[in-house]
Amino acid sequence: MWQITDDDVESIAIGAGILGTGGGGNPYLGQLRLRTMLKQGYSASIMSLDDLPDDALVTEVGGMGAPTVGVEKLPQGEEERWAIEALENYTGKTIDAIICAEIGGGNSIAPLVASALTGKPAIDADAMGRAFPEMQMSTHFINGVPCTPAAMVDEKGNQIIFSHMVDAFALERMSRHLCITMGCRSMLALPVMTGEQAKRTAVPRTLSLAKRVGDAVRKARAEKQPTAEAVLSVTGGHRIFTGKLIDVQRRTIGGFARGELFAEGFDLDNKFKLRIAFQNENLVAWRLDTQGNAEVLACVPDLICVLDSESGEPITTEQLRYGLRVTVVAIPCSDMLRTPQALAVVGPAAFGYPEVAFIPLPKTPGQGLE
Amino acid sequence: MWQITDDDVESIAIGAGILGTGGGGNPYLGQLRLRTMLKQGYSASIMSLDDLPDDALVTEVGGMGAPTVGVEKLPQGEEERWAIEALENYTGKTIDAIICAEIGGGNSIAPLVASALTGKPAIDADAMGRAFPEMQMSTHFINGVPCTPAAMVDEKGNQIIFSHMVDAFALERMSRHLCITMGCRSMLALPVMTGEQAKRTAVPRTLSLAKRVGDAVRKARAEKQPTAEAVLSVTGGHRIFTGKLIDVQRRTIGGFARGELFAEGFDLDNKFKLRIAFQNENLVAWRLDTQGNAEVLACVPDLICVLDSESGEPITTEQLRYGLRVTVVAIPCSDMLRTPQALAVVGPAAFGYPEVAFIPLPKTPGQGLE
Repeated sequence: MWQITDDDVESIAIGAGILGTGGGGNPYLGQLRLRTMLKQGYSASIMSLDDLPDDALVTEVGGMGAPTVGVEKLPQGEEERWAIEALENYTGKTIDAIICAEIGGGNSIAPLVASALTGKPAIDADAMGRAFPEMQMSTHFINGVPCTPAAMVDEKGNQIIFSHMVDAFALERMSRHLCITMGCRSMLALPVMTGEQAKRTAVPRTLSLAKRVGDAVRKARAEKQPTAEAVLSVTGGHRIFTGKLIDVQRRTIGGFARGELFAEGFDLDNKFKLRIAFQNENLVAWRLDTQGNAEVLACVPDLICVLDSESGEPITTEQLRYGLRVTVVAIPCSDMLRTPQALAVVGPAAFGYPEVAFIPLPKTPGQGLE
Repeated sequence: MWQITDDDVESIAIGAGILGTGGGGNPYLGQLRLRTMLKQGYSASIMSLDDLPDDALVTEVGGMGAPTVGVEKLPQGEEERWAIEALENYTGKTIDAIICAEIGGGNSIAPLVASALTGKPAIDADAMGRAFPEMQMSTHFINGVPCTPAAMVDEKGNQIIFSHMVDAFALERMSRHLCITMGCRSMLALPVMTGEQAKRTAVPRTLSLAKRVGDAVRKARAEKQPTAEAVLSVTGGHRIFTGKLIDVQRRTIGGFARGELFAEGFDLDNKFKLRIAFQNENLVAWRLDTQGNAEVLACVPDLICVLDSESGEPITTEQLRYGLRVTVVAIPCSDMLRTPQALAVVGPAAFGYPEVAFIPLPKTPGQGLE
């Protein structure tokens, strides 16, 4: 068990921004909120997944919504607690611990806020080992944990229980529509699973990985060293591109930010363009040669992260714009996302790219996502 | 207590079609289903509102959806029972009786199907004394009964509990969006109220009124008498127009059938046109003279019913078409809808006609809606 400090929060937010692969919502607001709570005397704790008893009851806590709305429409402040209490009231049981739905972006902070509000520990693990745009893309549900009961609340006090859903795709569809009705900002707690289920199906040690990534970036910044190298050293990732953004095409469709970016390389001896397709998160990166041939450099479920070449800050898909100097790194995803069952839900075909074959990025033993 | 017969179902369906004022969904399918169930040995019973104990627990059961979808996408058959059981499971209490959400259209039959499926009696009352398009337009909610908990199910087995809503408008907005996601057909059971609350806030004796209207229409048909007169004699209504439909403008917006009809009178000495605006149900009827001046003949919450002049059959708003010979009758609404609190929710301004003043149609003591 580990008590979160102000310093931890800053590092986790940086690391989660990078693991968010362009999406997951901006962790900035959540970070401010949690740091304020810590100053006010709240405390949040992180428990190792291994220490979770098999019969403990665990729930994921996370926000659903449009990041563009989330930075303008602020929360009431107790939504995480309301969602957990709604589940406890519905089941008549006490939740023992909180787990992260996705380590990428703002949802890395939600379980820590929930821990501070409820006194329950947050577990050092998540259900994606990155960020993904849809709810069925969870290692819990991919591995057979039922997605209900689920509680959903908004800042006005509206409270809904999904008591039974035929599958996680139905939950995604229905909660997404409700979320739009709630004004594109909502908080969910789901499902009620046992410690045994969580240990069997979660991606382990991702909160501490986010912290280590953030620590490395901060150390590199302080020492005026290249931040991208720091990210690669902790995550076991690969640099796939350095250059300048030359075009961004973006549409908001069905509550998602979808689009493509094009970038031009700086390497004059080996001139090529980069194309990345995204749906909130970056999905596929292609190398385009001067003849117009495309070669896949990386694709989901592996992580494609666009970093500002100067600051090392992750650039989320809504921040992409012409002229940015970027370093693109690709990070091998968790092994939990490389099973055939997982690839059916989070592989390139599930995102509309059936022609792209997933070729796993090589991993460095002992580094990065497990 | 009264056991429903095949003959009762036929009359209730006709009466409810007329009290549906153009909307409420077509009762034809529900009628077929209930009559088949009665033949299979199921039985449904109707209990007087007066006989309901103060401490009994009562819930409304009714469908939400687009009538145009409802005639093509058939139910699984047990949705009414699933919705009631979801409420019972959520509250841990047994529901004693079922009440009609709206006596108009298909939702007049849903509580009788629910009674047959669960063995619980249906109450001879409803929450509108007609049909209305939105959930907040209920005499229960207008008079302070909370609209939650509410259970919503679809034919696939998805099940949602609205455990708390800030008001019935929020429930309408959120359940409408969910209903669209469910494919525009869903079933709800809501709220859990006491017998005392139901007796204080329901429109009484509307199932038996629907039956009496249907009986009168069937008798007139058998005797080759004018059916419109039969409707007027039971409901205390007024004939406001006889003529031919000359134009229908219709759009499907936000899950509703909205539009206007225009009709031309047959009375050559007193030639005028009729205009009716509708949102699923008929809202306002205007008399248009040859100079183009408009005079309101009737408006919500009073009932405006368009009947086929030949058969006396009610014509629902999705069936309106050029050339139909129609008799339009206006029926005084329940006194429960004429209070200032009710008019704020179901008066012409609530439907977007702030310029129309509600002038109550005169009532005949002892006739029609109470």
